[in-house]
Amino acid sequence: MLSMVLESKGNITIRDFPIEEQVGSKDVRIAISHVGICGSDIHYYEYGNIGDFVVNEPMILGHEASGTIIEVGSEVKNLKVGDEVCMEPGIPNFHSIESMEGMYNLDPSVRFWATPPIHGCIRESVVHPESLTFRIPSNVSLEEGALVEPVSIGVYSAKIAEIDPADIALVIGAGTIGLVTALAALASGCSKVIVSDINDQKLELVKKIYGDKLVCVNSMNEDLLKVVHSIAPRGVDLLFEASGAPNVLKEFSYFVRPGGKAILIGMPNEPVPFDVVGAQVKEITLKTVFRYRNMYPRTLNMIASGAINVKPLITHRYEFKDAVEAFKFAASSSADTIKVMLSL
Amino acid sequence: MLSMVLESKGNITIRDFPIEEQVGSKDVRIAISHVGICGSDIHYYEYGNIGDFVVNEPMILGHEASGTIIEVGSEVKNLKVGDEVCMEPGIPNFHSIESMEGMYNLDPSVRFWATPPIHGCIRESVVHPESLTFRIPSNVSLEEGALVEPVSIGVYSAKIAEIDPADIALVIGAGTIGLVTALAALASGCSKVIVSDINDQKLELVKKIYGDKLVCVNSMNEDLLKVVHSIAPRGVDLLFEASGAPNVLKEFSYFVRPGGKAILIGMPNEPVPFDVVGAQVKEITLKTVFRYRNMYPRTLNMIASGAINVKPLITHRYEFKDAVEAFKFAASSSADTIKVMLSL
Amino acid sequence: MLSMVLESKGNITIRDFPIEEQVGSKDVRIAISHVGICGSDIHYYEYGNIGDFVVNEPMILGHEASGTIIEVGSEVKNLKVGDEVCMEPGIPNFHSIESMEGMYNLDPSVRFWATPPIHGCIRESVVHPESLTFRIPSNVSLEEGALVEPVSIGVYSAKIAEIDPADIALVIGAGTIGLVTALAALASGCSKVIVSDINDQKLELVKKIYGDKLVCVNSMNEDLLKVVHSIAPRGVDLLFEASGAPNVLKEFSYFVRPGGKAILIGMPNEPVPFDVVGAQVKEITLKTVFRYRNMYPRTLNMIASGAINVKPLITHRYEFKDAVEAFKFAASSSADTIKVMLSL
Amino acid sequence: MLSMVLESKGNITIRDFPIEEQVGSKDVRIAISHVGICGSDIHYYEYGNIGDFVVNEPMILGHEASGTIIEVGSEVKNLKVGDEVCMEPGIPNFHSIESMEGMYNLDPSVRFWATPPIHGCIRESVVHPESLTFRIPSNVSLEEGALVEPVSIGVYSAKIAEIDPADIALVIGAGTIGLVTALAALASGCSKVIVSDINDQKLELVKKIYGDKLVCVNSMNEDLLKVVHSIAPRGVDLLFEASGAPNVLKEFSYFVRPGGKAILIGMPNEPVPFDVVGAQVKEITLKTVFRYRNMYPRTLNMIASGAINVKPLITHRYEFKDAVEAFKFAASSSADTIKVMLSL
Repeated sequence: MLSMVLESKGNITIRDFPIEEQVGSKDVRIAISHVGICGSDIHYYEYGNIGDFVVNEPMILGHEASGTIIEVGSEVKNLKVGDEVCMEPGIPNFHSIESMEGMYNLDPSVRFWATPPIHGCIRESVVHPESLTFRIPSNVSLEEGALVEPVSIGVYSAKIAEIDPADIALVIGAGTIGLVTALAALASGCSKVIVSDINDQKLELVKKIYGDKLVCVNSMNEDLLKVVHSIAPRGVDLLFEASGAPNVLKEFSYFVRPGGKAILIGMPNEPVPFDVVGAQVKEITLKTVFRYRNMYPRTLNMIASGAINVKPLITHRYEFKDAVEAFKFAASSSADTIKVMLSL
Repeated sequence: MLSMVLESKGNITIRDFPIEEQVGSKDVRIAISHVGICGSDIHYYEYGNIGDFVVNEPMILGHEASGTIIEVGSEVKNLKVGDEVCMEPGIPNFHSIESMEGMYNLDPSVRFWATPPIHGCIRESVVHPESLTFRIPSNVSLEEGALVEPVSIGVYSAKIAEIDPADIALVIGAGTIGLVTALAALASGCSKVIVSDINDQKLELVKKIYGDKLVCVNSMNEDLLKVVHSIAPRGVDLLFEASGAPNVLKEFSYFVRPGGKAILIGMPNEPVPFDVVGAQVKEITLKTVFRYRNMYPRTLNMIASGAINVKPLITHRYEFKDAVEAFKFAASSSADTIKVMLSL
Repeated sequence: MLSMVLESKGNITIRDFPIEEQVGSKDVRIAISHVGICGSDIHYYEYGNIGDFVVNEPMILGHEASGTIIEVGSEVKNLKVGDEVCMEPGIPNFHSIESMEGMYNLDPSVRFWATPPIHGCIRESVVHPESLTFRIPSNVSLEEGALVEPVSIGVYSAKIAEIDPADIALVIGAGTIGLVTALAALASGCSKVIVSDINDQKLELVKKIYGDKLVCVNSMNEDLLKVVHSIAPRGVDLLFEASGAPNVLKEFSYFVRPGGKAILIGMPNEPVPFDVVGAQVKEITLKTVFRYRNMYPRTLNMIASGAINVKPLITHRYEFKDAVEAFKFAASSSADTIKVMLSL
Repeated sequence: MLSMVLESKGNITIRDFPIEEQVGSKDVRIAISHVGICGSDIHYYEYGNIGDFVVNEPMILGHEASGTIIEVGSEVKNLKVGDEVCMEPGIPNFHSIESMEGMYNLDPSVRFWATPPIHGCIRESVVHPESLTFRIPSNVSLEEGALVEPVSIGVYSAKIAEIDPADIALVIGAGTIGLVTALAALASGCSKVIVSDINDQKLELVKKIYGDKLVCVNSMNEDLLKVVHSIAPRGVDLLFEASGAPNVLKEFSYFVRPGGKAILIGMPNEPVPFDVVGAQVKEITLKTVFRYRNMYPRTLNMIASGAINVKPLITHRYEFKDAVEAFKFAASSSADTIKVMLSL
């Protein structure tokens, strides 16, 4: 099967890859249409690992995908050949305790695309469980469908935040995840969302696209606390940490109102200094998120209703045949790129 | 003080009324600017009572008000003379158990405007606690400020519903409360809101104003369940009961998904038949609301941000001198009226 | 396989029954040791149906069971031959939306023992998924293990109630379910639990067994509201409705404090009158429960720790060979019986 | 008024102190009966400050008190002269936003006994708001009443933890706060509570008193993770951090199950290293607590019902005349002391 293969660190090819998948009774086979390139794909390409996950064998990359169903298993009920769909890339053990408790994303045995040794989806087709495959509404394109994966991280963070009507939020970090979180928070009831970053080029890009909706602040040039207090005098209701920067939790409590919440999305490399007492005197709750669960239908509804406009997130497009070039571009650029999209 | 007085059932006058109020250290005095006429005002006018609350003495009507501060008490910190404000009409005992537990709206000793024997606010000025008086943002008008009271019922219902991103809601009843609830639910993260009523004229009015946002259904002419299932195949996530109709809870579980919620806002005159087993097999939770608490700043932020457009709710305007006529009109009309607004 | 078969309404036999079950890779086979007789078993025996569930073919009864593992599937990891276990009697589709959302008990396609057309467990052995089979701690007997099913309804109700430390609860109905709910509520943090019924004989039995822990009230002879107010002057924090009686919700709000909760466990035959306004002025939340989910390990821990003493619940014991007699006894008695237990 | 005065760092006296308090309309005057000595009292005595709170003027110490009412204000309704009571030591502004939102303990303007410049309660009498003064049940002693303050921290932590029935908890730190938290967690539905510390003498004392209820572990000598896994193979449901030790959050996620919670009670002097990614992959929620709110009636009910036995917490008793000696003893000892109690 023609696939985009990470042969080893720094070495990717497009080539035929021997992969044989049977369609089980509850599975469907999908011809891949679009795949977005994620930071983790690039990280594997550049470093050959993410933490303890090491690429020891050639591995197909990609996990943000959409496509069209070309085969269905005997017990499949809600999908049929020809349906345009997008797919959750993590397949849990549906019988695990975590799955039964409603947290299938936390099942330690989950098999996630393009996380070694599990192959990704930049290839002609994949076989996937029906229960993790979602029909794309008619007014949503396949390209938008491939964005459901990263956008779901934002929507899930908004869900976990338990937003109250008219909450005011601060998002630290204007990268793709920070941006989709900000958009999801707005679409989920926030009356105002402030986004801060330290990269002017990144902020200018965000401002150009979503500047009518988001308050963008460069915290190197502006006094972020002053901006926050001008909008939310007691501090924000919600702080979304989407930068992974090491010093955010050292002084975050100044930004948050008594009884507020911080949602930790960014993944710092090391333990970070955390001001416990600052959090305690305001009884701030810290919630953490790991990927998402049960979000695809909700994300699709938000895109379909126009609550989140995801189209501008795609800043660059490549065809499958140019995928190696696309990766090299994505790895070299950053501040003026949001999402690089492959079409197959 | 010139006031609008309900002398007795069916008999209202505008006249000087002897009312003497001192500005306490934590109080402000407000010159009233606008007051919306509420269904309860009309009910007292037409029937002389609401349940056990009986008008035995002449009583000033009105509780949906905005105005301008003309005097402040010695300990007032956040407001000053000249500020445009709107006021929560219920004054609790701030030391009661309910207040200390964060449910001041449930304090049995609350004193609520125009609920006998407490006077309302259709008069030249009122004295009010600073803590229940809220500054109107610069881009919100005094007229909109007077709408914060009824809109807060909708926003509070949306808060109590604990809306998840992209929830789908069904609102039963397209009256003022149903309508503001539908708008609040949309602004609070719902991806789709269906509003049902049995009055075509009322639905046409709602459709004309908010038809691009809400799905309006006349459940006498259309199969509501079919409409619901076409939008939410498993049933809606949230059902807001805003009609007070006696038979809604007899079959509501068909409309709601497993694990869904029903929020009961409408107040039926009698106990209503409730299908307990239908609710149990889906583990539907029923939440009830009584007025609101801590909603004014949030409602104001939603109006200021444009998340809720309240201006079209005012369908008729009268000056204070014509207030008797305004009441007669409001009492006689209904299906083509949303809110009748008095300016003082 | 020797089984207890409901041949048709009113006609039960013990006989060999042709049932052939393969142990799948994730299944275990259990030699049944004990089965408790449930009200639903008796109802099928006496009436041949429960609502729409009609016994059209001979059906094996029983769903409250414990036993010993005699065979394990190839992928079974946590259980082994010889383990003493108890089993959840409802097998959901683990891929359903409800299961993925963490509400597998609400999956409409769940297959529940002794609910037609699914056979029950009063037979020599059953095959069951490992994930619904739970090892019994060493200090808990197999007989107690067979009680985990009904006790789990009480523990689940206590969980759904979200008990705060030192809450005071009122349980309406002193039948088996009311009783296990009262015990679970006490073990889950309630400082006081009042149990009311209208049957003196039933209450005397409960008082004899658990009178040092529970406050028992016959609401026909005593003024229940007065008792409640003497213990909880503002009303109870939690009301557990476990009687299914038709008039409880007509006046329940008098018993509950502002902001309190009612958990509806009993299943009335018809829609019941519900005082919506009484609930609203106190913002009472009504939660409903359907069986349970993820409770067996918790119930087992509560029995093992001594937090709930279930042994006295077994008031009568029969051997398998006398099961027909046991059913006839269970069907004819009630007020002086809590649980009739069969040993196989 | 005869009082225990901290004249300056290291210098305490018992002497007449000029304090003049009027009983307002909603206040009561209480003759103090017992006061427990808290670590914060000792810290002010030894260091003259706690963080930014500096003792610049002579200040009366003490905030854990009980007594008898000797005078009531004109609007006092629920208390009368002669009532035995205990008092919450923090008086908020009841009109503040935090108070109205139900978080009066987070009101920044709260006036807390023995926190400079507010005087404490080791004196003949105090005037206090009725709403923060609680009648002690007849089967609870005044001495136990003085323990309600520290025990409420444990009960509040248990409430904030939202314990599910049969949860398993790990408490880090066996000091007074860790101990009352462990007892409160058990009384609030935990089936098992593990307490760890690094001080053998402290653990021996705890084991002697509560060893039948708590699992005590010296984490210097034993492998705490192994103990945890032997009791809770997936990790505990709840971790209560009550030590303030700097390295707990660096590796806490190993001890907690997926979806578990950590409640941070101990107050480290500096920001501490926090393993964000470890928390994320299990979606652990961190909650923080600051003192307590609305807990006194609940704590009193738990003591009255026997759910928490607080008597053994008092390890040493002194009369008021020997209070200086009591402080010196409390300051010098620690591992074999839980609570030093003064009687007035």
